[in-house]
Amino acid sequence: MELQIPKGTRDVPPEEKIAKDRIVGTLKEVFELYGYAPLDTPILEKFDILASKYAGGAEIMKETFRLNDQGGRELGLRYDLTVPLARYVGMNQNIKMPFKRYQIGEVFRDGPVASARYRQFTQCDVDVVGASSMAADAEIVALAYAAFRKLKLEVVIKVNSRKLLNDALDYCGIPKEKQEAVILSIDKLEKFGINAVKNELNEQKIEDSKISRIIDITCVNGSNGEKISQLGKILKNSEGLKEAEEVLSYLQNMGCEADFDVSLARGLSYYTGTVFEGILKNSSVKSSVCGGGRYDNMVGAFLGKEGYPAVGISFGVDRIYDAIAEKQESKQKTSTKIYVIPIKTLSESMKIAQQLRAAGINTDIGLMERGPSKNLEYANSLGIPFVVFAGKKELEQGKLKLRDMGSGKEETVEIKEIIKKVRE
Amino acid sequence: MELQIPKGTRDVPPEEKIAKDRIVGTLKEVFELYGYAPLDTPILEKFDILASKYAGGAEIMKETFRLNDQGGRELGLRYDLTVPLARYVGMNQNIKMPFKRYQIGEVFRDGPVASARYRQFTQCDVDVVGASSMAADAEIVALAYAAFRKLKLEVVIKVNSRKLLNDALDYCGIPKEKQEAVILSIDKLEKFGINAVKNELNEQKIEDSKISRIIDITCVNGSNGEKISQLGKILKNSEGLKEAEEVLSYLQNMGCEADFDVSLARGLSYYTGTVFEGILKNSSVKSSVCGGGRYDNMVGAFLGKEGYPAVGISFGVDRIYDAIAEKQESKQKTSTKIYVIPIKTLSESMKIAQQLRAAGINTDIGLMERGPSKNLEYANSLGIPFVVFAGKKELEQGKLKLRDMGSGKEETVEIKEIIKKVRE
Repeated sequence: MELQIPKGTRDVPPEEKIAKDRIVGTLKEVFELYGYAPLDTPILEKFDILASKYAGGAEIMKETFRLNDQGGRELGLRYDLTVPLARYVGMNQNIKMPFKRYQIGEVFRDGPVASARYRQFTQCDVDVVGASSMAADAEIVALAYAAFRKLKLEVVIKVNSRKLLNDALDYCGIPKEKQEAVILSIDKLEKFGINAVKNELNEQKIEDSKISRIIDITCVNGSNGEKISQLGKILKNSEGLKEAEEVLSYLQNMGCEADFDVSLARGLSYYTGTVFEGILKNSSVKSSVCGGGRYDNMVGAFLGKEGYPAVGISFGVDRIYDAIAEKQESKQKTSTKIYVIPIKTLSESMKIAQQLRAAGINTDIGLMERGPSKNLEYANSLGIPFVVFAGKKELEQGKLKLRDMGSGKEETVEIKEIIKKVRE
Repeated sequence: MELQIPKGTRDVPPEEKIAKDRIVGTLKEVFELYGYAPLDTPILEKFDILASKYAGGAEIMKETFRLNDQGGRELGLRYDLTVPLARYVGMNQNIKMPFKRYQIGEVFRDGPVASARYRQFTQCDVDVVGASSMAADAEIVALAYAAFRKLKLEVVIKVNSRKLLNDALDYCGIPKEKQEAVILSIDKLEKFGINAVKNELNEQKIEDSKISRIIDITCVNGSNGEKISQLGKILKNSEGLKEAEEVLSYLQNMGCEADFDVSLARGLSYYTGTVFEGILKNSSVKSSVCGGGRYDNMVGAFLGKEGYPAVGISFGVDRIYDAIAEKQESKQKTSTKIYVIPIKTLSESMKIAQQLRAAGINTDIGLMERGPSKNLEYANSLGIPFVVFAGKKELEQGKLKLRDMGSGKEETVEIKEIIKKVRE
């Protein structure tokens, strides 16, 4: 039998898992700082829930892992955390609104193996259901800024409004039924440039004069205030512009400098208002590290009821990991702080390890009855900062030889001295 | 469409997820205190890996969820974290031994719906691969004691040795090929009593005289030392007894009082030496909350190589949760400490919320433009301990009205005073 993992999946070894756990821990801290509580839902969902026409849509269903249980029931592996959120809200009609929850979990997409995409990956979502105020949108963007500040990553968050894009396309004379496709083309401006987008719009049989107008509007420049004032001159009474202005003003009020980018659309079709996306500065990670927006119809349509406005954001844990990893010189393989090497003193050494642990110090001990040099090599390979040699003679004097693995300095001291030094 | 989750799965609402996260956090802390590092592996595994004859065995394969990817590859949902560990070790031959890892993740069993068992549940495993010394077994039992101490649960951990049971059955004249079945019957002594076990052994065509001997040995009583000395008189040169004695002596040396229980066998067939199981005292949770043992052949057999001794323990997060939940008067629904109620002061209130968050205080704010009493009701329903009313008049004086939701006491104070009070 050949030992392999499924295509598109991966193992996360300790040196990556330690860093990822730290990122997730930081994100959770910030989510709770902003009043969100954790939720968990099963990885298995009923297939008909995932396949609902108000759920992820036809494209995502092609990539949904499908399976049956022993009783022949049709199940699927969840492809996101938004559909489970909608289902949860529907099954728990007594929850108080607004429902502010975060969820971190694995999702699955059975995409083509040839692409570099993973088939199992971690999603990290923050959503508020029930609040229609633009203050909620602004708060989520502020939360994202706080998260990246805490992760020590420089980010700029672009903000726009789908509603504004629709208003702009109305103004440009694009019929409603064509607007969705045009918006998805506009979304490619930053990535593929003006000419590529013009070509796409040509293929959609949009007249050149209208394309020019669209490009002029979406490429409006200047400060956020200047953009708003220029757009205000042509888009009279645009609700979308008013909403964007409101979100940006709340953000400024909270000390967050978002970047109003009229070309930002986000790929998903369920957004109804504000959209946003975070890009790192000074990083080789060029793709967005977070993104989201307002989706006022999706939860309600899914539940067959009105009145479930929602806005949310998703963080890309793997990309954040890449951005942090490239700044680090070495990867931490263990959180162990000290390694006890017994020299024919296993029983006594185990007691010493227990004393160090009781003092809150992460401690490992040589259990393989190897010699000091093999043990030293082991501690070194894991990057453990301190080693203690537990020799008979020193132990009789109530002392141990402590080695600082960084400096190579050794000294024979009492255990309370060791605890003090390692804590420093 | 009816909103349902798959049979045997469940949602974990915030008030349970907060408590579970805390349990998992405590366990991780203790695992790292003992020198273990985290590992993550995919939920999807190749079906042939899961179905290997050295993996989980025929019974578990009946309960393995099976599925295909787009390319027709046969996959399965993992049913434990031990087979993925063996595969990982096999695929990473350069890892340093001993490999001390912990893994916390979801596993799946497609069991009969009628049983109360869950089909998706959290496993929490700690294993060391590569160390054959009984010191490793003792360390893992000591780790379990430390974990329950930190969780504020009283536990007693029973320890035995499979090898000792085999030696005892040799002594009783049970042929090797029958020993496995006899051991699985002995394991039921505590749960079903002597008569039930006698009946089972009768059905296995074991003579009455042998059954009496078996019962005498497995029901030996007294202190750990007394049991060892009694068994020593009849089982001369038993390696199993020597190992059990060694583990118990290491444990005593580390200040852990384990309970030597000769009837303990643990259900799984892959154990080769020490076995252990933790039972709570003073709890309505009667099933074991942790369990494990030494399995020296499984990883090697799986990899087709020798030299992979291993010992590990698994913690039952859900049972631990039940035991903690029954001691608590109320469930925490959010970690939010303070709720800001804007009274026609949304912009200013958002600024105040940001100040509180900057001070590290988990803060929520009324975003639904509801009146003070509705907002108060919301904060109360979530059990948030403090509320702040942001009225125009007070704000002009740089103050806010703070309400202690426990006592109902209100006072109008500056924000720095609020930060001080909430931190207390």
